[in-house]
Amino acid sequence: MQIAIALYENFTALDAIGPYDTLGHLPGAETVFVAAQPGPVLNDRRELSLLATKSFDEVTRPDVVVVPGGPVRSSQLENEALHDWLRAVDPTTTWTTSVCTGSLALAAAGLLAGRRATSHWLALETLAGLGVEATGERVVLDGKYVTAAGVSSGIDMGLTLAERIAGEFAAQSIQLMVEYDPQPPFDAGSPAKAPADLVAYWRANAKEQENVDS
Amino acid sequence: MQIAIALYENFTALDAIGPYDTLGHLPGAETVFVAAQPGPVLNDRRELSLLATKSFDEVTRPDVVVVPGGPVRSSQLENEALHDWLRAVDPTTTWTTSVCTGSLALAAAGLLAGRRATSHWLALETLAGLGVEATGERVVLDGKYVTAAGVSSGIDMGLTLAERIAGEFAAQSIQLMVEYDPQPPFDAGSPAKAPADLVAYWRANAKEQENVDS
Repeated sequence: MQIAIALYENFTALDAIGPYDTLGHLPGAETVFVAAQPGPVLNDRRELSLLATKSFDEVTRPDVVVVPGGPVRSSQLENEALHDWLRAVDPTTTWTTSVCTGSLALAAAGLLAGRRATSHWLALETLAGLGVEATGERVVLDGKYVTAAGVSSGIDMGLTLAERIAGEFAAQSIQLMVEYDPQPPFDAGSPAKAPADLVAYWRANAKEQENVDS
Repeated sequence: MQIAIALYENFTALDAIGPYDTLGHLPGAETVFVAAQPGPVLNDRRELSLLATKSFDEVTRPDVVVVPGGPVRSSQLENEALHDWLRAVDPTTTWTTSVCTGSLALAAAGLLAGRRATSHWLALETLAGLGVEATGERVVLDGKYVTAAGVSSGIDMGLTLAERIAGEFAAQSIQLMVEYDPQPPFDAGSPAKAPADLVAYWRANAKEQENVDS
């Protein structure tokens, strides 16, 4: 089973690594990090590069595709190289997935039309604007399309998909080995649970930046 | 505030990225990925390289040090270059931290003697053997030394430390923006919670590999 994780400038590292260090642990899985060109790909804060070992052209039949997101909308919405590759490989995948605003790239490539899907909570309006039935759920399965909410939700997606692919023993084994027994210091991880003033602050901040929900 | 995340061959990517995409979001924080030499550093499954942009020699006064772990014990226990650097920078850090078996490196460098600390659940005996008061808690603070349990616990550590450094608003903001509202499909993330046969299976498997708790 080949898992292809797509990299592009401005991606968020945890979006890619959450699924990688869960789903990628499945027995028989091989993960390839793929980008327009092989080589280092800079993340959203321009501090970290992950190495793409293959170009999009070289990865033609992945079984599972994972598209991470990032805070710069144009990186998902106007990324022709990524969209072209997604359209080329999607017909033969068993699962096509995304984390965070990676779903905007799937939608912009035309793969989520009329489907239920999720994204970062600040990007749900944009997702809906692309003809998607957007929902704030954490992990959404619609056929072979699996989308996860913001950043850290890729871990939950990885485990969910691990069970679908290889069963409960395999998925629970991965959860135990990565010791995923979350104990966040606050219950502030979603707009429904975080203090209202905090949510309002970040919503206003995002509107100001004009690259979110606009 | 400079955060230095140490890379070395066989590190586990999520150990490094969990703290990075939480703590690294603090206002005014700059994160540097550092290794014996600058350049790509291969992870535990030899599929992914992260780029170290600085050598240990070049990073002499980090405020926060993060040491990720990995499944190959010698990478933590017999890593002279890492130990030397940790001993050199520790006197001036405000926080010296680890995720997973990264605590074995801190202990092997002599920084945890007599302190309370945690590690991956399969490495607690090894940690105790290094003169550390080993505990299975998820995030352990003992003075400026902060250790986290297996792999995914670095996210909880990142948020815990974010609050200590910058307060509740900053920490909750990060939790909301990375949408850390965990919904694991199983309650199998610790040896106390996972099915007993699963825990026994992986404990036996680890003993067989001889690089764990031996």
